[in-house]
Amino acid sequence: MAEILPSIFGADLGNLNDELEFLKNEKTTILHVDMMDGNFVPNIAFGDIQINDLKKRTNMIFDVHMMVDHPFDHIDSVLDAGVEMICVHYEATPHIHRLIKKIKGSGRKAGVAITPSTRPEELEYLLDDLDYILVMTINPGHKGEKFIEQSLEKIRHTKQLIGDRPIQIEVDGGVNDAIAKQCKDAGAELIVVGGFLFSNDPSVQYQKLREAIS
Amino acid sequence: MAEILPSIFGADLGNLNDELEFLKNEKTTILHVDMMDGNFVPNIAFGDIQINDLKKRTNMIFDVHMMVDHPFDHIDSVLDAGVEMICVHYEATPHIHRLIKKIKGSGRKAGVAITPSTRPEELEYLLDDLDYILVMTINPGHKGEKFIEQSLEKIRHTKQLIGDRPIQIEVDGGVNDAIAKQCKDAGAELIVVGGFLFSNDPSVQYQKLREAIS
Amino acid sequence: MAEILPSIFGADLGNLNDELEFLKNEKTTILHVDMMDGNFVPNIAFGDIQINDLKKRTNMIFDVHMMVDHPFDHIDSVLDAGVEMICVHYEATPHIHRLIKKIKGSGRKAGVAITPSTRPEELEYLLDDLDYILVMTINPGHKGEKFIEQSLEKIRHTKQLIGDRPIQIEVDGGVNDAIAKQCKDAGAELIVVGGFLFSNDPSVQYQKLREAIS
Amino acid sequence: MAEILPSIFGADLGNLNDELEFLKNEKTTILHVDMMDGNFVPNIAFGDIQINDLKKRTNMIFDVHMMVDHPFDHIDSVLDAGVEMICVHYEATPHIHRLIKKIKGSGRKAGVAITPSTRPEELEYLLDDLDYILVMTINPGHKGEKFIEQSLEKIRHTKQLIGDRPIQIEVDGGVNDAIAKQCKDAGAELIVVGGFLFSNDPSVQYQKLREAIS
Amino acid sequence: MAEILPSIFGADLGNLNDELEFLKNEKTTILHVDMMDGNFVPNIAFGDIQINDLKKRTNMIFDVHMMVDHPFDHIDSVLDAGVEMICVHYEATPHIHRLIKKIKGSGRKAGVAITPSTRPEELEYLLDDLDYILVMTINPGHKGEKFIEQSLEKIRHTKQLIGDRPIQIEVDGGVNDAIAKQCKDAGAELIVVGGFLFSNDPSVQYQKLREAIS
Amino acid sequence: MAEILPSIFGADLGNLNDELEFLKNEKTTILHVDMMDGNFVPNIAFGDIQINDLKKRTNMIFDVHMMVDHPFDHIDSVLDAGVEMICVHYEATPHIHRLIKKIKGSGRKAGVAITPSTRPEELEYLLDDLDYILVMTINPGHKGEKFIEQSLEKIRHTKQLIGDRPIQIEVDGGVNDAIAKQCKDAGAELIVVGGFLFSNDPSVQYQKLREAIS
Repeated sequence: MAEILPSIFGADLGNLNDELEFLKNEKTTILHVDMMDGNFVPNIAFGDIQINDLKKRTNMIFDVHMMVDHPFDHIDSVLDAGVEMICVHYEATPHIHRLIKKIKGSGRKAGVAITPSTRPEELEYLLDDLDYILVMTINPGHKGEKFIEQSLEKIRHTKQLIGDRPIQIEVDGGVNDAIAKQCKDAGAELIVVGGFLFSNDPSVQYQKLREAIS
Repeated sequence: MAEILPSIFGADLGNLNDELEFLKNEKTTILHVDMMDGNFVPNIAFGDIQINDLKKRTNMIFDVHMMVDHPFDHIDSVLDAGVEMICVHYEATPHIHRLIKKIKGSGRKAGVAITPSTRPEELEYLLDDLDYILVMTINPGHKGEKFIEQSLEKIRHTKQLIGDRPIQIEVDGGVNDAIAKQCKDAGAELIVVGGFLFSNDPSVQYQKLREAIS
Repeated sequence: MAEILPSIFGADLGNLNDELEFLKNEKTTILHVDMMDGNFVPNIAFGDIQINDLKKRTNMIFDVHMMVDHPFDHIDSVLDAGVEMICVHYEATPHIHRLIKKIKGSGRKAGVAITPSTRPEELEYLLDDLDYILVMTINPGHKGEKFIEQSLEKIRHTKQLIGDRPIQIEVDGGVNDAIAKQCKDAGAELIVVGGFLFSNDPSVQYQKLREAIS
Repeated sequence: MAEILPSIFGADLGNLNDELEFLKNEKTTILHVDMMDGNFVPNIAFGDIQINDLKKRTNMIFDVHMMVDHPFDHIDSVLDAGVEMICVHYEATPHIHRLIKKIKGSGRKAGVAITPSTRPEELEYLLDDLDYILVMTINPGHKGEKFIEQSLEKIRHTKQLIGDRPIQIEVDGGVNDAIAKQCKDAGAELIVVGGFLFSNDPSVQYQKLREAIS
Repeated sequence: MAEILPSIFGADLGNLNDELEFLKNEKTTILHVDMMDGNFVPNIAFGDIQINDLKKRTNMIFDVHMMVDHPFDHIDSVLDAGVEMICVHYEATPHIHRLIKKIKGSGRKAGVAITPSTRPEELEYLLDDLDYILVMTINPGHKGEKFIEQSLEKIRHTKQLIGDRPIQIEVDGGVNDAIAKQCKDAGAELIVVGGFLFSNDPSVQYQKLREAIS
Repeated sequence: MAEILPSIFGADLGNLNDELEFLKNEKTTILHVDMMDGNFVPNIAFGDIQINDLKKRTNMIFDVHMMVDHPFDHIDSVLDAGVEMICVHYEATPHIHRLIKKIKGSGRKAGVAITPSTRPEELEYLLDDLDYILVMTINPGHKGEKFIEQSLEKIRHTKQLIGDRPIQIEVDGGVNDAIAKQCKDAGAELIVVGGFLFSNDPSVQYQKLREAIS
């Protein structure tokens, strides 16, 4: 069963409390948070102090997407912030296995994110330890980019590689209601939505998204 | 004449609009924004997308403090955000002169920030192009740190080096009302305040700060 | 149909105008230019100022092979130089998809280069956007190295992965007439030649190469 | 036929001469030496000066495992130390083919090490030049870590990829007698042992290990 | 006594042989060569292969200005090219003393270059080993930039720090005849000229420059 | 009063226990340990695991000289090893003030090391927090180098800058008995000796050194 993960980076940064209240009323389970260091990706946003601060304002599960060059330098403070799900980029370190083990060893769900050019086959020796795989459907670190069509095939292929392991597929980037449905049909269960959800009337948008994947 | 520059990083991130409204009502002229990349400094916060978004919500002058490893990679988007004052760390690049010229060439005010271990003498060949010098009074990239006492002597010494050039001294880190007064007496004109201002009753705190430096 | 791409790095650097004239008379269509930063590869040569300067001297199509650590820092100036074909190393950035899209979006042909140790399978999710794949037949950044024999099998395998997509295979490194023929037979269409072409009587060498691949 | 490679990093650093004497008496053929730079891996140990010094104290073959960020900066001094076997991490450089060729060209045995997350398929275009493949069975750069179970499958898979090429499989990390046997049965021939060998009565431990793989 | 050092980067890259012939006829003693890696400075040009090639075409003394991030990685090949003068940036390595000693130990003249923001005082502990100091009069790595006026004061100050040591001051960037004279009057003896020299009629320009500093 | 600090890097690595026993019998108070990462300096040696191991074998005070690129990545494990004195390179981080505070805050003695090209003036804003300054008398990270003569003047100048603060001057590199005396006379109190002490008859050498500085 698929669900929508609102991305806080797409919300109104001037009224985060209201946005969190809105998401709570919409019965959001998981909040997606983009951590960007301006080095692994060009933009900068949401470090551990901000994440820690946000976490105290809500009971939602936090899914932190670490887009950083030196994930080992930041993992302790992200864990300390009390977030429940953490995903790190396969491309950011050759020691991804150790990082996954550290996240799991702290009782959190561990994910691996892959950029549009990375093949899911690369994750072969991580599959036994993963809770989810984030298939980036745009290039990470940007806003307002267009969904990459071939991602749908990648989702299906990833699904196949996962087999009957209890791993969920997450997608992030350029998702609207129609695309959400396509992603769900291809095998995605965790569907991150930013700009589309928080545009126009968010409540209506949310409803469209939920219907699309129901 | 000294003035208080509220640091948005110390405000309530859940209610930035309200915080901006509060600052407007308090007749704040300049808002200080910390840009941190998790590489030059350990924390991550406020990239160009967030700064751009904040800038649209208010008429205050923005003073962006770039704490990043590769300032040339970020300067264009910071300039595009329309901010009026930009300061970069002397320690972040050997090409600081070129960066200063670029900021000035874009019609903005240019500052250089120095960490607690850097001597103001290092800035000798930049003085003719600078609008302000940010003397860090804590180590950059942290929150809630204690004001470094010897900063007062550094401010006085910087003042002396500046001579009659139209350069303002800015201080940032660990400032409360008593310290604000000491900094002002030492020669600082731009006094950044974060935690102290936004604690308890901010309106009262603001008043204390203003009185201290009046 | 295969063609020879002379590599300007193999020409007489003291008489580039004459060399360009020679290539024009030989009806060369595409000129190959090696851009090396001394970081991704040990040697340094041909930055954007030199490429820009060369481009104005001739009507040949330019194929720039970017062997640099931070391709995003250089792509704008390479595009500004007006070159028609740009290939970047798969190993140089995890954001190769974004780079390819940028090159394509500027109306140029986009290629990806792979070092001798990289498998063509890695390019799977780039194939729909590529115009050519540069299979390095020596280790990049050196001169006068010996052609790596197993490259022929890699070319054949790459050909197979490409299927009926309109992607050309380019080879570069250690190519003489006999090897040019072997590469062409294996499936290469763009055959870069440096030292062999510009040795002895270049006109004779060129003829040998053309005959070998005819 | 499998053999045990004692890892000097697990020996008593206060009595290396005695340890070397012990290993000689036990008829050790190959000594494994971990070179760690605190950058590619978190720990630091055994640079070229120490390796050079150790090499003069014994006639054993040295197998140096380079866990460093810039292997080209260190390869010359490692070669100068006179060691007979050198393995470098696939993940440490895109120019691994050139490094392997350099090691082979100096008349030494060349190996490639892969971290737990790296697939042996990645080595496809190196197989014709390799003497051995080091399948890391823990994450490199740590001590006292637990053997990663899925390594056994990776060894078997690597064995299959090697086919009838004369390449040996080496394992390193968390090995005791029972695991040594499992690794040997899976196809490993070079079995590095550190902590287990040098604990309790090393002579007894060594015997246990030898029996396990006999 | 001051002299003009033509910068090959300002010459016609299409006719370097002719340019070298012209410089020979003009009795040029020293040729200035800019080595740029696209990392320490944004542009890329003139690595060791090109320098080596140029060196064979002329008897002029070569003065190589290394604008690179990792000077130790390139110094051997620059020395091997047989150049007589090498200057490295103070800002590029904390081990500049060792680099200077290496250059001197190879029987070459050693210089240190400083960017516009660096104070000559920083060179205090290098003065006893230096043959020349390159005071950059523009920001390094660019073409066609404007001479920084305050450089004149920096030259005078550097002259004072040098005292009676046999160290020459070199200037580079934005120099024309009038500026050449100012630099000479301030104490510079080695005056690099690029664009101005090779514009219009180079022979006339050269003459203007010579007269200006005579 | 000056004292000799034997450098373990100069001892017989095959018999460290005996060497430690020898040093104990010679009533050595402080043992100097070089931590080198092959990045800040070319050599690699003595990481935290080895330091931790050595520390347990003796009661001597440990003085760890961190020659590493990312001192913040290593400081925790060095502190955990229980060493009493730690010095870090001024050139290794712009956040040296924070590092010094961290060392002091852990109840250890804090030092700053400077390479031969760094002026002691740079340390001005650290003086109030320092216990010692390590004036490198060779370029760090090498063995068997020759003492740099101008270091004596640098020691005297450093002494002057220290004034009556309780800061000791340490020297390291190329020291024999005659040089030890010169350093002591110039103001050094902590005199590191490696090769000279452990050559010939170390007991005699030690005696020579002690006499020289008595």
